[in-house]
Amino acid sequence: MGSSFGDLFRVSTFGESHGGSVGVIVEGCPPRLEIDLEKIQEELDRRRPGQSKITTPRKELDQVEILSGIANRETLGTPIAMIVRNRDQRPSDYKEMKNIFRPSHADGTYHLKYGIQAPSGGGRASARETIGRVAAGAIAKQLLQKVQNTQILAWVKRIHNIEAEIDINTIGFADIESNIVRCPNQDVAKLMIQRIEEISRDGDSCGGLIECVVRNVPAGLGMPVFDKLEADLSKALMSLPATKGFEVGSGFRGTFLKGSEHNDAFIAGDKNRLRTATNNSGGIQGGISNGEPIILRVGFKPTATIRKDQQTIDSEGKQITLASKGRHDPCVLPRAVPMVEAMVSIVLADHLLRQRGQCSLW
Amino acid sequence: MGSSFGDLFRVSTFGESHGGSVGVIVEGCPPRLEIDLEKIQEELDRRRPGQSKITTPRKELDQVEILSGIANRETLGTPIAMIVRNRDQRPSDYKEMKNIFRPSHADGTYHLKYGIQAPSGGGRASARETIGRVAAGAIAKQLLQKVQNTQILAWVKRIHNIEAEIDINTIGFADIESNIVRCPNQDVAKLMIQRIEEISRDGDSCGGLIECVVRNVPAGLGMPVFDKLEADLSKALMSLPATKGFEVGSGFRGTFLKGSEHNDAFIAGDKNRLRTATNNSGGIQGGISNGEPIILRVGFKPTATIRKDQQTIDSEGKQITLASKGRHDPCVLPRAVPMVEAMVSIVLADHLLRQRGQCSLW
Amino acid sequence: MGSSFGDLFRVSTFGESHGGSVGVIVEGCPPRLEIDLEKIQEELDRRRPGQSKITTPRKELDQVEILSGIANRETLGTPIAMIVRNRDQRPSDYKEMKNIFRPSHADGTYHLKYGIQAPSGGGRASARETIGRVAAGAIAKQLLQKVQNTQILAWVKRIHNIEAEIDINTIGFADIESNIVRCPNQDVAKLMIQRIEEISRDGDSCGGLIECVVRNVPAGLGMPVFDKLEADLSKALMSLPATKGFEVGSGFRGTFLKGSEHNDAFIAGDKNRLRTATNNSGGIQGGISNGEPIILRVGFKPTATIRKDQQTIDSEGKQITLASKGRHDPCVLPRAVPMVEAMVSIVLADHLLRQRGQCSLW
Amino acid sequence: MGSSFGDLFRVSTFGESHGGSVGVIVEGCPPRLEIDLEKIQEELDRRRPGQSKITTPRKELDQVEILSGIANRETLGTPIAMIVRNRDQRPSDYKEMKNIFRPSHADGTYHLKYGIQAPSGGGRASARETIGRVAAGAIAKQLLQKVQNTQILAWVKRIHNIEAEIDINTIGFADIESNIVRCPNQDVAKLMIQRIEEISRDGDSCGGLIECVVRNVPAGLGMPVFDKLEADLSKALMSLPATKGFEVGSGFRGTFLKGSEHNDAFIAGDKNRLRTATNNSGGIQGGISNGEPIILRVGFKPTATIRKDQQTIDSEGKQITLASKGRHDPCVLPRAVPMVEAMVSIVLADHLLRQRGQCSLW
Repeated sequence: MGSSFGDLFRVSTFGESHGGSVGVIVEGCPPRLEIDLEKIQEELDRRRPGQSKITTPRKELDQVEILSGIANRETLGTPIAMIVRNRDQRPSDYKEMKNIFRPSHADGTYHLKYGIQAPSGGGRASARETIGRVAAGAIAKQLLQKVQNTQILAWVKRIHNIEAEIDINTIGFADIESNIVRCPNQDVAKLMIQRIEEISRDGDSCGGLIECVVRNVPAGLGMPVFDKLEADLSKALMSLPATKGFEVGSGFRGTFLKGSEHNDAFIAGDKNRLRTATNNSGGIQGGISNGEPIILRVGFKPTATIRKDQQTIDSEGKQITLASKGRHDPCVLPRAVPMVEAMVSIVLADHLLRQRGQCSLW
Repeated sequence: MGSSFGDLFRVSTFGESHGGSVGVIVEGCPPRLEIDLEKIQEELDRRRPGQSKITTPRKELDQVEILSGIANRETLGTPIAMIVRNRDQRPSDYKEMKNIFRPSHADGTYHLKYGIQAPSGGGRASARETIGRVAAGAIAKQLLQKVQNTQILAWVKRIHNIEAEIDINTIGFADIESNIVRCPNQDVAKLMIQRIEEISRDGDSCGGLIECVVRNVPAGLGMPVFDKLEADLSKALMSLPATKGFEVGSGFRGTFLKGSEHNDAFIAGDKNRLRTATNNSGGIQGGISNGEPIILRVGFKPTATIRKDQQTIDSEGKQITLASKGRHDPCVLPRAVPMVEAMVSIVLADHLLRQRGQCSLW
Repeated sequence: MGSSFGDLFRVSTFGESHGGSVGVIVEGCPPRLEIDLEKIQEELDRRRPGQSKITTPRKELDQVEILSGIANRETLGTPIAMIVRNRDQRPSDYKEMKNIFRPSHADGTYHLKYGIQAPSGGGRASARETIGRVAAGAIAKQLLQKVQNTQILAWVKRIHNIEAEIDINTIGFADIESNIVRCPNQDVAKLMIQRIEEISRDGDSCGGLIECVVRNVPAGLGMPVFDKLEADLSKALMSLPATKGFEVGSGFRGTFLKGSEHNDAFIAGDKNRLRTATNNSGGIQGGISNGEPIILRVGFKPTATIRKDQQTIDSEGKQITLASKGRHDPCVLPRAVPMVEAMVSIVLADHLLRQRGQCSLW
Repeated sequence: MGSSFGDLFRVSTFGESHGGSVGVIVEGCPPRLEIDLEKIQEELDRRRPGQSKITTPRKELDQVEILSGIANRETLGTPIAMIVRNRDQRPSDYKEMKNIFRPSHADGTYHLKYGIQAPSGGGRASARETIGRVAAGAIAKQLLQKVQNTQILAWVKRIHNIEAEIDINTIGFADIESNIVRCPNQDVAKLMIQRIEEISRDGDSCGGLIECVVRNVPAGLGMPVFDKLEADLSKALMSLPATKGFEVGSGFRGTFLKGSEHNDAFIAGDKNRLRTATNNSGGIQGGISNGEPIILRVGFKPTATIRKDQQTIDSEGKQITLASKGRHDPCVLPRAVPMVEAMVSIVLADHLLRQRGQCSLW
């Protein structure tokens, strides 16, 4: 528990930021799925820090190594184990902090729960645990693409208080990847980059909002009551580090509307999916996908590590001033985009396998 | 899957709106917990429609019947089964709709997924399935109260666009239950009731926002990575009918701030919990409760059933005008308050047992 | 945990022998399966005590009541809840025993684990909890029969040291049900009945062996490594009360043979199944069903409740002589036959749903 | 599913016999448990083929590499990932067999279920997948030893039809490890080795029986109904390759006795455990451990790979004579001893954590 996610498409991650490797086992991927191995590495590259001037200078190669489950570029139907070795670490940055509880980090609660802090850089709370998720998500993406040409796209919609207008029906992967902040609105992207640089020079950090759309959704995914599709998606996304909120479809905006304004009228669809005139439902009704695009948003808080002095305590309760001199990632949002896509893919893959199992016998 | 929630404190619900009973099995509640049976009924009464002028006139007695797991007002440590019989139904209201897909209801997706619609009133998508959740939540609440005097309180913070200022540190259960809209700000509550009545007379519906605080939280609940406490809470709440969004702590507002503005500095706590100067974390850091109050918000869309004509299709794809003549609940928020408390209680009970085991609490 | 079994076809039971009802929720049964309700009652009748001179005189009607999940004799795809009310109990038989640990009963361990004994007759350890299993198994049987005309048959092969020769390829349900000891060899059945009556008059009890065959097995059920089909079957059967051992195919006898004597040579089969010249594998190879009949055996110990004086202790550790005056079931085997069939059916139904989900996408 | 075992102490294995690595993730091990790393390697060495004249000549070093979860010889409370690289393989031995279904192997069923055979040597059905289990079991053993000085000992009781008399109360690890067949009765061990060599020279194989005792069992482990301790133990053991049967306590022998002969009378124990005069229960009553030693037996069929000609078919259904020229392990029992201990340890660790929680053991 805790390090596993999913039932039929199950993902189990491991690894601290210091020590051998981080990695993942993906269980339940059906056999004979062609796997494009380069695409797995590409997703990991998207996640990696140190790619641009606005992210952490920590340089890791993050080369994925596949230990099992794939042969001749095809899945065997057996568990797929993938690892990435940890290479670059600076224990000196973290030594001083061993007994200091960094504000809004996991140090305090880990110490309370476990009686120890993992040495160096956050251990299991470190963003490096997301490597396993992204590798697993890459497999899930290819499964969904094969079955229904499903496309999962996420992007940065807002950084700090700079928000972009986006037409979710027309944007594509190239628009998102064309700048270092992963905002498909090129003009606003420039403003976002400037804001991040300002805030970074100031030794501070910022958060924002990521939006995600899923196209060609297999209809019928999700279970009534507890495993509603939006419920599993929200758990998946709220399990990412630094998240503060989740929305589906019209989100909180929709809660200001009246029923007559918010309802999505049905229009003629086909045997395999429904069509609606509007899509406030965000593609999910009664907890089940209807075939319309799924639309989600996730809010990220500003990174807790900053280069300003902060008041805090150590593990003995003593007041102390913390001046962080180490690496400083002023804004995690661009790197979180592939993480969001990965988690969404994993949830959809899991529900796909459940659907085909339980509702396809006759 | 789908109808079960939790691992060590597991809740499995059953029952459609038409047909014998709805109910729940609660598995994993430790033995020798004194149960106040009347409190279970009180929670169900809070959930029940037809209590006031602003809710559905459907009259159900919803008397809970305990079939197992409790003897002499004490838990046995065995599964606790509780049922509520369905008494009042109006099949004639629903007959006409058997093949019509009501907009923003689950009809369409259920038909797509299962090939059938449950007869009468939404089947498993009906809000009556929440009876089981609320009964189970009542057990969870008593467990948490015994272990740490934990208190879970939810209230209506906003109806349509009427929002109340609330001091979450001082409000109590009596404030919330003192009016039919469950808003602890009495002045704003009056405005809310007026708004709901207006909208109802117009045959329309509205949504809003529920807020929830948990006091005396056992620290150390939650698992790093996938079963972060806020992740499980978000899944639990987003599994309630009609939800559109979830927030923890500072929520989306916090995503507009900088790290220096958002971080919660630690101050001296004690052996069993941490203390912070501010609480943007909402009581959860690194996915684990720190002992500060947990603060959550859930957004609800306007009820899909309205008494205005709507364009839609039937199960054969034919365009049709739907004029709903049946019951009409203009606003589900007041009834959803006990549902929110129930789901939060269930998640906390589950994590408590994971942290401390099933037979070692006392 | 503990009271639930299965993943995609999940069975959760509840109920003590004293108090409201025993029952079960079956989750995951696909929709639109026609259910013969009378067959569910028939299976419960087979399980019921007091049917004949050789079993417990406790008279219960055990009428099943379906609370959800089935409408118009068809499954809805929602959880199926079934209960049976407890009517006949003799608390006076059990009062005296409240603090006495009956030898080879669960009294001692329950007290140790939970700190309490469920009042009257064994609580959750009582054989009445098997009612829920048998009802769920009846649903599973009908699912398997619809999908592949799968037939699950169990019978008593040995009582005490009286063993019957059985041709597993030719026997049928009628042979088994034609006598009260459920042994399809009529001559040996008579000897078995005599033996049970002798032992019963003596105030003692006996055990024996149940054998089970599954015909028209869907091939491909079972997962390599941990969820091998025989592993799940063994857990299911060893979870029945009073079991001491489990065998598949050639069983322990096969462990005396050499490879050349034990291997099953393949012969020509067809697209959907394999054929073997012999069947020491018992229909399962590498943990996966091959299409040949599955053959299992379960050993049951003699019933622990006897009408002879026994030395034991009470919950305070004091030595005491126990003279049981209450009901006395000298041999549980005939009643256990439907329990064995039920558990086998549940496991196969679960694996069927997993197989169709994970390996049927293309 | 399928490749994971356990709930709170969860073990997920991966790896085929050909290709990168085999390995395991152990999730849920509490933090701050001192780990003797050499003991993990010792267990793997016990499992390894090619150690003596009676086992497979395949030489693998099987050096374990720990990737996460342990630092400074202490568990972190995070998932522990361990891998062993595959070094020695002879693809030429297996090439010829790609489309031939070896009798009593998993080839046929895997082909049926998945549509492919994993290349070379059995893939996931290969005994190399047990490496992960044994490594995980080594962790579980150390956990149980720390908590209660629990000792898990298994040995070979019978090879072919040569059975040893063993006093389970007095034997120790040294007795078992003192000969290559792992039978603690030295005289019978010599006979066993002779028998295996005879059978091997003949190109044939044999099976037998492994017995296991657990001393200093924590009482109270196991859940009533479905997760009875013996049920989980039977699943764990029946999931090992080549198993045919499972017994607990008096086993099938006990099913021949009467209640007065079989019941275990209670004698005075203490607060933390029960004592019985006899132990036909094998340490488990009502599905829960009582503190008496747990006694189990597992039967293994003769290895399916032999060096005699066999009739079989290929994947197109064509009759073919298979003459296996490759490696030949005439008897798997000695190597299976550490596998049995590992699985028993894993089940007990899981139930221990359920009973006592994950963070409260010390």
